[in-house]
Amino acid sequence: MKTAVVLLSGGLDSTTCLAIARSQGFKVHALSIDYGQRHRIELERAARIASQLGVSSHRIVAIDLRTIGGSALTAAIDVPKSRSSDEMSHGIPITYVPARNTILLSIALGLAETVGAFDIFIGANVLDYSGYPDCRPEFLDAFARLANLATKVGIEGAGHFRVHAPLLKMTKAEIIREGVRLGVDYTTTISCYDPDPQGLACGECDSCQLRRKGFMEAGVLDPTSYAAGE
Amino acid sequence: MKTAVVLLSGGLDSTTCLAIARSQGFKVHALSIDYGQRHRIELERAARIASQLGVSSHRIVAIDLRTIGGSALTAAIDVPKSRSSDEMSHGIPITYVPARNTILLSIALGLAETVGAFDIFIGANVLDYSGYPDCRPEFLDAFARLANLATKVGIEGAGHFRVHAPLLKMTKAEIIREGVRLGVDYTTTISCYDPDPQGLACGECDSCQLRRKGFMEAGVLDPTSYAAGE
Repeated sequence: MKTAVVLLSGGLDSTTCLAIARSQGFKVHALSIDYGQRHRIELERAARIASQLGVSSHRIVAIDLRTIGGSALTAAIDVPKSRSSDEMSHGIPITYVPARNTILLSIALGLAETVGAFDIFIGANVLDYSGYPDCRPEFLDAFARLANLATKVGIEGAGHFRVHAPLLKMTKAEIIREGVRLGVDYTTTISCYDPDPQGLACGECDSCQLRRKGFMEAGVLDPTSYAAGE
Repeated sequence: MKTAVVLLSGGLDSTTCLAIARSQGFKVHALSIDYGQRHRIELERAARIASQLGVSSHRIVAIDLRTIGGSALTAAIDVPKSRSSDEMSHGIPITYVPARNTILLSIALGLAETVGAFDIFIGANVLDYSGYPDCRPEFLDAFARLANLATKVGIEGAGHFRVHAPLLKMTKAEIIREGVRLGVDYTTTISCYDPDPQGLACGECDSCQLRRKGFMEAGVLDPTSYAAGE
């Protein structure tokens, strides 16, 4: 059976990505990275999702990226709220974590080598996150090339690493429809950059806005629990 | 002034590498990664070395790689002792940490982006560690290419990332001689894979053997404190 490592944040995208890997027949080792983000509730959700979707293992690797700073998700910078779609689509948002996907993929590569996997899945997407350099196809291809030079199994030619980003060119609505088709229960997933302590979504950050719009456009009832007033 | 990020483990190689970066006129942000290794004493030494060598900042990023396992340095596997140089030079040692340098360089890249550096120094060496795929020049070149695709500053063309590995083709004796020339005090550095709680080196692991041989060949008095009986 083919084995894959799937990066699982506990959000809508990575959960759908995991469901896709499972639907393609992969035995999955899920990997969540606790990089000191504000939304720690994601990690609890990730564990539940991993179990719901029948993974072989789920690991959480803690790395404290607050030391290197630079992002509203890890440092003491306010998460922007209620931005227009025009504001969201220009430039690199302050929620960008320096070298985030490079770091996440590196750790996934370490795990892949340990469990004997050559396939790494990441829920990267170029449409919603056009401002993030490390969500682009050329970056993901370059990482796969690096992986084959970086590892014992890569240089010994036991296999060839592949980075799968099945959501790369899908709209949020397409991602949701695909997930629903595969039986994903989006109640468990959390997308908000700034949830309250109970895990209720703020409804106003970029990520919440993209998610709401996605459910609306997909014609699927949004199961998200929003904070009071929403 | 040129700014660099230097990966500093607190060992002989990375300390010399830091001294070389300083001698080339770089303002240095030193970065130590606490990846759950046995030899935590290295981190205390790294902080002392960073201060001795006049860095602009020293950060320690904690990442718990024990979760992904695979190495005698992070998992519950015995560190091999008293191997012959023939045994050491064949194959990939069990002290190999999966994707280690990929992970270390990724975090260094995140810091580089935050502090505005385009130069990353790593004490990688192909001679002593011929078995490690991620110490080879083709790996380091591939990482620099990846870095330019992975980052905001890379794709905006603000500069070009370079990975410097000045020790890459030096023998241990050459590294020691260069360090002594630059005024490095090797008393503080620690190389042992399995030091005792006081930081005394075992004298018998591969790393201790390479270090002792290096001082001997360099004709420099070995300032290392070895455990009793050595």
